[in-house]
Amino acid sequence: MRNIKLIVEYDGTGYCGWQIQNPKIKSQNPKIKTVQGEIEGALKKLLGEKVNLVGSGRTDAGVHALAQVANFKTSSTLSLERIRKGLNGTLPGDISIKDASLAPDDFNARFDAKYKAYRYAIRNSSDAPAIGRFYCVHVRHPLNISLMRREGSSLLGRHDFSSFRLSGSSISDPVRTIKKLSVMKRASEVFIYIEADGFLYGMARSIAGTLIDIGRGKTGRGSIKRIMGSRRRAAAGPTAPANGLTLMRVAY
Amino acid sequence: MRNIKLIVEYDGTGYCGWQIQNPKIKSQNPKIKTVQGEIEGALKKLLGEKVNLVGSGRTDAGVHALAQVANFKTSSTLSLERIRKGLNGTLPGDISIKDASLAPDDFNARFDAKYKAYRYAIRNSSDAPAIGRFYCVHVRHPLNISLMRREGSSLLGRHDFSSFRLSGSSISDPVRTIKKLSVMKRASEVFIYIEADGFLYGMARSIAGTLIDIGRGKTGRGSIKRIMGSRRRAAAGPTAPANGLTLMRVAY
Repeated sequence: MRNIKLIVEYDGTGYCGWQIQNPKIKSQNPKIKTVQGEIEGALKKLLGEKVNLVGSGRTDAGVHALAQVANFKTSSTLSLERIRKGLNGTLPGDISIKDASLAPDDFNARFDAKYKAYRYAIRNSSDAPAIGRFYCVHVRHPLNISLMRREGSSLLGRHDFSSFRLSGSSISDPVRTIKKLSVMKRASEVFIYIEADGFLYGMARSIAGTLIDIGRGKTGRGSIKRIMGSRRRAAAGPTAPANGLTLMRVAY
Repeated sequence: MRNIKLIVEYDGTGYCGWQIQNPKIKSQNPKIKTVQGEIEGALKKLLGEKVNLVGSGRTDAGVHALAQVANFKTSSTLSLERIRKGLNGTLPGDISIKDASLAPDDFNARFDAKYKAYRYAIRNSSDAPAIGRFYCVHVRHPLNISLMRREGSSLLGRHDFSSFRLSGSSISDPVRTIKKLSVMKRASEVFIYIEADGFLYGMARSIAGTLIDIGRGKTGRGSIKRIMGSRRRAAAGPTAPANGLTLMRVAY
């Protein structure tokens, strides 16, 4: 059995996230589409066998990925290039396999992930964007970028991120380490980059929503420290919409 | 009567171009949507009168615009800000009015345009893009960017661009002046910027298609001069797909 690693780009607009829904939800709405489900379906057609695709982590409905990582084991002898091309020939245009490579037998895309990087994209202008509107959120109020940067730096390091976690996760340990956090501005586009050893459920979007509130002047200096210290989700800002978020990289 | 100038951003994916189709085509397919038609419809609702919206020029089906310019005359006394906001409240998400301003009585968005700038976007990679796939075309073969630049520079200046014009235009004079032409590369994205005092029908896409062929090595050095000299459309490369093209700016 070969262990094959895929790098996957997807436009999450039309999907209920990465992960196949549990059978109960699926039976209520059989039309629910997931990225994992589409790729597993394409692999079954191509390889003639049912495989189990392991992603580095789930992404929520509407969230995009430039380089999601996943792996699967197969007894097929098809070349890696034919697997990549075969998948791209079958998959819809909003999913693209950027690379297929051979991984060590024990490689697991989920458990071996060391760092992940997300980008949150904002169009900060009086008018809503038409072009690229599925890849960013529109914020009308002018953002104070330097305040967002200063407050964002309080998130760096190892912390209890309970305040930035949505309910519905099964993982109990709320401690994560943020390695990098930057706020970039290019014309009317603002990007929040976050690199961490792991993200709690809804963490990237909760941080983005909170930093946007800070940028708008809803709360002042010291907000992040206060919010983090409270360990209550209610203390933080809103969860920013899914379509602004893109998984950029997974490091192993 | 005030003369009002609009700056319009649109995602052309869902439209049969800027310009309202003639009644004959429209009667055959009443579902045909145009950007001009949508804005005129929204203006009628907002102002309670039928206005004639003049665009700087038509853009083809599927072509985008970051800053199309249009004007209309109205007897309404609504403030400019209320016109802009009212339009954005009525228009679908793929059309956004970025600015509404008062223009001189004799301003005409079409006849007064001095220069226009278009950008043609290419994703040059072995895999097709998923994110942003409606805003670029995918070219699998590696492109020779320096050759594209060198050949592109032969297009600069005042020339007969008959070789880069599609049939179906009513304008007879094929002479135009290209002020700037640049080929930029950023990671796997390649952009062709063209600034000219006017564009013949299909000219931007014909130039893009020809430069892509040159970049792929289909024809060598001196191709552009030879093609331009022949004054025959058949001598040039294919017309590149509409979704890669965006109208960036109109100067008056």
